Amino acid sequence: MKISARNRLRGSVKSVEKGVVTAKIEIEIAAPTIVTAVITKEATEELNIQVRDAVEAVVKATGVMVAKAG
Amino acid sequence: MKISARNRLRGSVKSVEKGVVTAKIEIEIAAPTIVTAVITKEATEELNIQVRDAVEAVVKATGVMVAKAG
Amino acid sequence: MKISARNRLRGSVKSVEKGVVTAKIEIEIAAPTIVTAVITKEATEELNIQVRDAVEAVVKATGVMVAKAG
Amino acid sequence: MKISARNRLRGSVKSVEKGVVTAKIEIEIAAPTIVTAVITKEATEELNIQVRDAVEAVVKATGVMVAKAG
Amino acid sequence: MKISARNRLRGSVKSVEKGVVTAKIEIEIAAPTIVTAVITKEATEELNIQVRDAVEAVVKATGVMVAKAG
Amino acid sequence: MKISARNRLRGSVKSVEKGVVTAKIEIEIAAPTIVTAVITKEATEELNIQVRDAVEAVVKATGVMVAKAG
Repeated sequence: MKISARNRLRGSVKSVEKGVVTAKIEIEIAAPTIVTAVITKEATEELNIQVRDAVEAVVKATGVMVAKAG
Repeated sequence: MKISARNRLRGSVKSVEKGVVTAKIEIEIAAPTIVTAVITKEATEELNIQVRDAVEAVVKATGVMVAKAG
Repeated sequence: MKISARNRLRGSVKSVEKGVVTAKIEIEIAAPTIVTAVITKEATEELNIQVRDAVEAVVKATGVMVAKAG
Repeated sequence: MKISARNRLRGSVKSVEKGVVTAKIEIEIAAPTIVTAVITKEATEELNIQVRDAVEAVVKATGVMVAKAG
Repeated sequence: MKISARNRLRGSVKSVEKGVVTAKIEIEIAAPTIVTAVITKEATEELNIQVRDAVEAVVKATGVMVAKAG
Repeated sequence: MKISARNRLRGSVKSVEKGVVTAKIEIEIAAPTIVTAVITKEATEELNIQVRDAVEAVVKATGVMVAKAG
């Protein structure tokens, strides 16, 4: 399947922190740049996301803002 | 001001394409990785976003999904 | 690749309307239920989304609200 | 009130799982199709969302992606 | 119907700008505070949103960030 | 830095409730109007968000819906 989401950043899972409903996943996409995702704990377990896994951070273009100095 | 959004990726504007209401901004965060944002045309003009500008792509953690092979 | 997004609804493309930056895609997931997506025109063209294509509407769980009578 | 959100899928609550801040609600929109929502625990309690309730899953069109084989 | 979205800000429509797919709606929630929404042109027409209409800006809590000086 | 997000509502923090991964922040933007944000607990602690802090609720325009009577 190909997905319409414009942004797919490859990286390695640095940490997985599970709450009751959600989980926080930190993905190192290029040292020292970290992307943080909050997904369901259910998805974390279904995909068996673990530290050092090769994954992609996927973001829909409408979810991205732009900041500029000035 | 500091913002709660967990993800700030520094890069350089590669393209700006304006529609009537929205605009698509491509940001190279590390060659050859591109992040694509869809923001309002109004914001594009207010921040005067132009090709080669140094900017940041900002993403709230709840806007990030994780994909994994398998 | 498996994605963390909890919601994947299979359907058939009913209409594609392209703007300058974005496009509106209507997907019939079960007659007469339609799901409407706004994605980039770029993604519409890259995936070559056309009427009658078999596709999935994909939604992150944090993007879903609940409404109830009362 | 009418809301601009394009997507309203009627269904029945299959499960409610409460965390500290958020809650996960599973809605069966047509057997066996489940839509999963992550909303605040506060909203879950204010709307008194319980298993077997008739509800709607509501999604803004910009929150929907499209996936296609190939 | 009651919706789980935590944020409903009452105001008056100040401007409506339609593109091909999307539309930008400015809502004055308390002079001089403006809230800007980007919704589909279709929704704008279906709800017949016009300048001076009494409306509500509705936002899911997961769509809100917090910024603080420092 | 200036950010493309169209909506910045100034207010005062009324409550902070931390879960394991996320936190709920209530911001009074004008008595008695409250805006509720769900952000990461990590951001709450990094920005040291506390009751009575002067903050802004920041919302991207694509995250805003419009509701109208009728």
